[in-house]
Amino acid sequence: MPRVSAEHLAVRRDHIVAAALRCFARDGFHATSVRDVVRESGLSAGAVYSYFRSKDDLVAAAVEPVVEGLLHAVDEAVLDRGASPGEVVGRLLERIYPLVVEGDVDYTRIAVTAWAEGLRDPAVRGIAQRTYGRVRERLSECVAHWRDAGHLPNDTDPEVLGQLLFSVVVGFVMQHALLGDVDPHRYAAAATLLLPPAHGGADR
Amino acid sequence: MPRVSAEHLAVRRDHIVAAALRCFARDGFHATSVRDVVRESGLSAGAVYSYFRSKDDLVAAAVEPVVEGLLHAVDEAVLDRGASPGEVVGRLLERIYPLVVEGDVDYTRIAVTAWAEGLRDPAVRGIAQRTYGRVRERLSECVAHWRDAGHLPNDTDPEVLGQLLFSVVVGFVMQHALLGDVDPHRYAAAATLLLPPAHGGADR
Repeated sequence: MPRVSAEHLAVRRDHIVAAALRCFARDGFHATSVRDVVRESGLSAGAVYSYFRSKDDLVAAAVEPVVEGLLHAVDEAVLDRGASPGEVVGRLLERIYPLVVEGDVDYTRIAVTAWAEGLRDPAVRGIAQRTYGRVRERLSECVAHWRDAGHLPNDTDPEVLGQLLFSVVVGFVMQHALLGDVDPHRYAAAATLLLPPAHGGADR
Repeated sequence: MPRVSAEHLAVRRDHIVAAALRCFARDGFHATSVRDVVRESGLSAGAVYSYFRSKDDLVAAAVEPVVEGLLHAVDEAVLDRGASPGEVVGRLLERIYPLVVEGDVDYTRIAVTAWAEGLRDPAVRGIAQRTYGRVRERLSECVAHWRDAGHLPNDTDPEVLGQLLFSVVVGFVMQHALLGDVDPHRYAAAATLLLPPAHGGADR
């Protein structure tokens, strides 16, 4: 086997992941086989298997960048401790759009198929529980901060309010993938409008 | 063939639908065949086919009661024109819980698998678009009423706010099915708390 550069290896790996993403977005995780990804990539089966030993490895590689991007977007959106719930969720949405709907692959379709796959496949469910668990934790920390700063009542439950704020993201993803009629930026603006403003706690 | 009463026919039909629901909740729409439903029902293939000619007929029969129930719950939740966004969404959630999580079948699992199926199957997507479209229309009508009554700013966009309120329901369904850690009644209480109260428009 000829020696190839690390850069060449990385380019080829990215090529395979891109082929897998096209398959997953089109057909779902469940209906996509490694053989489909081989065909989509135009490479040999041996080449694909030298990078990914199983479909699970391909799934993990395909979702990893968007999982990391999602967590990074949450961290950035919650940085400003003075921001209101509406502002934080609006910013979070604006930060995830480039990741999930403005690139070559519509990740909202991949997310919805991953949810369904997670109902049956413990490995996929585990990835979802860890990732989404971390997102909700960050949102709950914000809620606790808003409560302590007097913007929400003292008996506010940060855990369940984190779940509710997370629903704004989940609902966008589902409606974008399945119903196809949600405008991302109008949706973010609506979230900023509807959720409590920074000073909204006083009269609640 | 012996003559059987209409009541007997209805009981048998319900028995088949219940078997289909168990299959769909366990394995998803995609992986369930009519043969699986025959086996689950304990009846003959001929008996099942005399009621349902195809898997599509079974899917339609299985989702119809919850679709109708969902629309009825929305109609009831929006009846009180004086209610705030938080109250309406909280009531809507409380009305749909008996339908989706408190019966024999966990319909949140069926919904998530239907969303994924709808990405590939135009018939399932059509059911989702019609049903969810009607739910969102009702919510948008409420938003327009709140705006006209001065509870939301004049430039409020009812269509996109309807999408956002619908996300509260979608996010509950997804988190209940996949993450399994959402308490329905605490979630409804949080929605009532976080969304604008009836008098919330004045200072926004």
